[in-house]
Amino acid sequence: MKAVQVVGYHRNLELADVPSPTVTGPYDVIVKIGGAGVCRTDLHILEGQWAEKSGVTLPYTIGHENAGWVHAVGSAVTNVAEGDKVIVHPLITCGLCRACRSGDDVHCEQSLFPGIDTAGGYAEYLKTSARSVVRIDDSLEPADVAALADAGLTAYHAVAKAARRLRPGDRCVVIGAGGLGHIGVQVLKALTAAEIVVVDRNPDALKLALSIGADHGVMSGGNQVEEVLALTGGRGAEAVIDFVGEGGATRDGVRMLRRAGDYHVVGYGENIDVPTIDIISAEINFIGNLVGSYNDLCELMVLAARGKVRLHTTAYPLDRFQDALDDLDAGRVRGRAILVP
Amino acid sequence: MKAVQVVGYHRNLELADVPSPTVTGPYDVIVKIGGAGVCRTDLHILEGQWAEKSGVTLPYTIGHENAGWVHAVGSAVTNVAEGDKVIVHPLITCGLCRACRSGDDVHCEQSLFPGIDTAGGYAEYLKTSARSVVRIDDSLEPADVAALADAGLTAYHAVAKAARRLRPGDRCVVIGAGGLGHIGVQVLKALTAAEIVVVDRNPDALKLALSIGADHGVMSGGNQVEEVLALTGGRGAEAVIDFVGEGGATRDGVRMLRRAGDYHVVGYGENIDVPTIDIISAEINFIGNLVGSYNDLCELMVLAARGKVRLHTTAYPLDRFQDALDDLDAGRVRGRAILVP
Amino acid sequence: MKAVQVVGYHRNLELADVPSPTVTGPYDVIVKIGGAGVCRTDLHILEGQWAEKSGVTLPYTIGHENAGWVHAVGSAVTNVAEGDKVIVHPLITCGLCRACRSGDDVHCEQSLFPGIDTAGGYAEYLKTSARSVVRIDDSLEPADVAALADAGLTAYHAVAKAARRLRPGDRCVVIGAGGLGHIGVQVLKALTAAEIVVVDRNPDALKLALSIGADHGVMSGGNQVEEVLALTGGRGAEAVIDFVGEGGATRDGVRMLRRAGDYHVVGYGENIDVPTIDIISAEINFIGNLVGSYNDLCELMVLAARGKVRLHTTAYPLDRFQDALDDLDAGRVRGRAILVP
Amino acid sequence: MKAVQVVGYHRNLELADVPSPTVTGPYDVIVKIGGAGVCRTDLHILEGQWAEKSGVTLPYTIGHENAGWVHAVGSAVTNVAEGDKVIVHPLITCGLCRACRSGDDVHCEQSLFPGIDTAGGYAEYLKTSARSVVRIDDSLEPADVAALADAGLTAYHAVAKAARRLRPGDRCVVIGAGGLGHIGVQVLKALTAAEIVVVDRNPDALKLALSIGADHGVMSGGNQVEEVLALTGGRGAEAVIDFVGEGGATRDGVRMLRRAGDYHVVGYGENIDVPTIDIISAEINFIGNLVGSYNDLCELMVLAARGKVRLHTTAYPLDRFQDALDDLDAGRVRGRAILVP
Repeated sequence: MKAVQVVGYHRNLELADVPSPTVTGPYDVIVKIGGAGVCRTDLHILEGQWAEKSGVTLPYTIGHENAGWVHAVGSAVTNVAEGDKVIVHPLITCGLCRACRSGDDVHCEQSLFPGIDTAGGYAEYLKTSARSVVRIDDSLEPADVAALADAGLTAYHAVAKAARRLRPGDRCVVIGAGGLGHIGVQVLKALTAAEIVVVDRNPDALKLALSIGADHGVMSGGNQVEEVLALTGGRGAEAVIDFVGEGGATRDGVRMLRRAGDYHVVGYGENIDVPTIDIISAEINFIGNLVGSYNDLCELMVLAARGKVRLHTTAYPLDRFQDALDDLDAGRVRGRAILVP
Repeated sequence: MKAVQVVGYHRNLELADVPSPTVTGPYDVIVKIGGAGVCRTDLHILEGQWAEKSGVTLPYTIGHENAGWVHAVGSAVTNVAEGDKVIVHPLITCGLCRACRSGDDVHCEQSLFPGIDTAGGYAEYLKTSARSVVRIDDSLEPADVAALADAGLTAYHAVAKAARRLRPGDRCVVIGAGGLGHIGVQVLKALTAAEIVVVDRNPDALKLALSIGADHGVMSGGNQVEEVLALTGGRGAEAVIDFVGEGGATRDGVRMLRRAGDYHVVGYGENIDVPTIDIISAEINFIGNLVGSYNDLCELMVLAARGKVRLHTTAYPLDRFQDALDDLDAGRVRGRAILVP
Repeated sequence: MKAVQVVGYHRNLELADVPSPTVTGPYDVIVKIGGAGVCRTDLHILEGQWAEKSGVTLPYTIGHENAGWVHAVGSAVTNVAEGDKVIVHPLITCGLCRACRSGDDVHCEQSLFPGIDTAGGYAEYLKTSARSVVRIDDSLEPADVAALADAGLTAYHAVAKAARRLRPGDRCVVIGAGGLGHIGVQVLKALTAAEIVVVDRNPDALKLALSIGADHGVMSGGNQVEEVLALTGGRGAEAVIDFVGEGGATRDGVRMLRRAGDYHVVGYGENIDVPTIDIISAEINFIGNLVGSYNDLCELMVLAARGKVRLHTTAYPLDRFQDALDDLDAGRVRGRAILVP
Repeated sequence: MKAVQVVGYHRNLELADVPSPTVTGPYDVIVKIGGAGVCRTDLHILEGQWAEKSGVTLPYTIGHENAGWVHAVGSAVTNVAEGDKVIVHPLITCGLCRACRSGDDVHCEQSLFPGIDTAGGYAEYLKTSARSVVRIDDSLEPADVAALADAGLTAYHAVAKAARRLRPGDRCVVIGAGGLGHIGVQVLKALTAAEIVVVDRNPDALKLALSIGADHGVMSGGNQVEEVLALTGGRGAEAVIDFVGEGGATRDGVRMLRRAGDYHVVGYGENIDVPTIDIISAEINFIGNLVGSYNDLCELMVLAARGKVRLHTTAYPLDRFQDALDDLDAGRVRGRAILVP
């Protein structure tokens, strides 16, 4: 089959002809790819940022945001059947460790991450596991939802945690209305009655956020902290969800937080650097957020099927992968780029 | 009555003769002091560290860890009566704001803090509110429990929050086995079946911790991170409760934390300074902890009455206040110093 | 002032001229009534059903669903001021007992219930407490929201509890789409992304429920259990909220419940009568629901201000109280009857 | 191998020579039995009570409380290895359904129950799954802990749920201090600082309960409700855990429950039959409890290893199975009877 592979760092990806994956274990599932999201992490992989951490052997096929149709299943698979339309959870997990047994499979003690440390989805077929495939509604198309598998799932996970504490009358600040933040606003709207304040430096992003459910948009560029305080009675918001995590976002974000509030860290880059006296005297919390669990992905697919979460995408044929990456790198992609084999 | 007052910063306290407080409002409670804890914060007050923050007018009576007997009550007080033995919650709260109405009275929007911003308990009598007095068991003496009113309550609050997530088999690291940590270990033992690892640089503190319920003691001084990892299967602990918060404790403490773990900040001094990528990739949380609520204090008094939390104290007559402060400053107090009028 | 009073059981109410209430305690609040809801409980009071339980001395003024404007406040009141538009929580609570200190003021150990055991709101003025008044948004009118003070608050409270466990993809069955159920559907829609199945025997009530957010309407009258099972994949719903509680509703409702599901009891009349083996083998829960807390009422008023909860009302001048009661008794009221002084 | 089998209902079990189980699937685990608990359910099976429900084909091997050593494992098993000492969770679960993915594997949609609907542990070897075996501490012996696999696990599960709401100062009533209740008291003691009141009709059971941590023992036989109310300030207990569920236990137990309290149903036999008006006016809850999850069993094994849960057992050689059953039926077993092959 055709697959797009990393053949070296600081080099372009290459289209190769490789053997199609086959079922070898009882829980294996082979997915015929319907869409593979092109993500900024893919650019970072090519820059070598993940080389040491993943320990992957080159060449290998990248792509970690995948959806498609079940092509073949192992002997023990009972939750999907050939032909089912599915989205693929980014991790292959063991199902036996305490984390997996607690519903917290993201912290599985021996997981694989296709597209990062084993063959991914920039290809015609992907090998994953029964524990990683979620059937999607008839009304959804793989190419339309593929990017929800990782970026969307991370946003869902953070918002669902924040939502557990948000009551009517509470305010939630969303820092960053880009790829993740834009999903985050839609999920907040679906799961809570909190007032949503979105902060971004891009007026178009704010306009979009307001059109999909945000109550207030605040331009960052100097006075964003004061504006958020003005919108929250001078006290700050019960929750801040930070999808940026760099360029001073955390320093400002903490100042937007109310006493006893939760600061959700999602985006990353800079350090959280806060005096412990401020943490204890305001009794605030910093909550880390990784990608969501399998059950989180099921819930997100329910929201997608009901039209409560929508994603703007631009499709590219698989062999135009270089155009997709170039467009992403140059900021020319509106929404998410999706490779369609 | 006799009262010990701040008459100026960078000057010694002075014993003065001042009018006894009287009931003027319907919820007022006058407490005859049986014991007033001498706290490191009292030294900081004299150094002027709280001058600006509290805005208190000099002279005023200090002392924020108080217990005694109810001497007089306002017309609307129904929860205590003259003669009742009580411990005094450090805050006077409004009972009307949303925080007070949620059981989270520590975040009251208009609280007073006797001993910090109004007259405290280094005196024969203290004026507080019906909302601040907790009746204590017949078996307890005010002078014995006074120091639980603030230091003990802070430890209880942090541990009770941590306990909600700790299951049998989980490990909890306690950094610092001094005044607060030593209460914390006893509370952990009372509320959970978690394995308790105590880290301190003082061998006597470790010995004490082991005698009151800790499972392991680890000397800090170089290899403490490695030792904690060795005790936790190389993965770190589900919770770290940091009663130190300075001298590098937080940098080391974070390395002792397991994926998806909670880092409870109680002690303060240095900054939490952690890369956001570490926060999200291990999905860890930093939880701020201030003093406990009124209900927390009630619960702590139950543990004290049942002998599950004990405090070592050294009593001084009220007019020997200077000796108590000098001994505290010089590190000569074993346990907590208590002024007894 | 004019007040409508119970002068004897099994007799009509009478309009009387009584002294206006005045401030006598520091937390007293006098409310000029803008609207008082006429509730089925008022009919039960006249039938003597509450005589023994309330122990009230006749004559007294009834009416327990009140809203209006603050007319006078006691010396210690800081949360409202003269002229403020308010809705009145049905209970006057002490603020000192453990329940009040936990945010669970409905279980206050010494509460009063105006309209039931002391003077209520079928009058020009009502005496209540600072702890019972919630300021409402400028956009809301007292007569429009008065009935949310008790009936609406009960529905909000039950739904908010259920919502904590409902995830996208979960189903919630609402039994009864009348006064409370109709608020319940709106609150479910505002707080969750659960699929809402409403069961009622009245086709108009179902039509209304579908127009305000229910996903499915099921006529009760024989096959309702089978229909709900068909709508829930044969497994039943994760939650059932029963606003009826009589006429066999509980027997049927339990059969609509999924394994590990929650059955919320709100309406009352018959017994819950279920074999313990069914409770343990399906591991289901029965959750009691009384009226909501003060904070619940604040949250409900936020939903009302944002247009997410609307109530249909019919206004009557105060002196037409008998018409209102007669219309209610005869089933001629559409929505809720409101007395306007 | 030797196995004790059901050969017909209303007939005695028979010892047979049957093929030893072998590994056929990748997650299979064969356990060499070290101890199999003899449970009252085994008597019920022989009476035919489970015949229809389980649908099992006779003859088959019974025994659902098992522990031993891993004898062989399938190709995909990573959590245990040959020779490991293990206790066996009573269910074989799929690991793929939403319940399994949530840590709530007891509600697995396609579970097997060895000893009930497939071959159990009254035998030399048992076939189970990697998802069902928990390694136990070196200090524990299979025959000593086998009965914790089901009876003990049920008690642990109920108590751990109750413990989440119990604070110091709260009271928990335990109805029934027999096999399950006796474990329940030890778990309550390990997980909470609540005051424990045990109700039983057997003075020896009460004596035992007091010796392992109960604070009060109350003889049932007439005045138990009044005595419990006297011990709880007239208000009742925050939680009741009912291990009996028959003979009027539930009627009495509900009267021992405080407003807003939780009634945990564990034992079964009679109906919960309570007026809905009592459920809503006191806002009480009834919580169903089935056996615990895999993670619950891991936690219970930690308590056992630390000596916090102990079980009295009487061992019988496997071929003396009839004596064990006869002794159980006649009430001659002290603690639990265990078959040792």
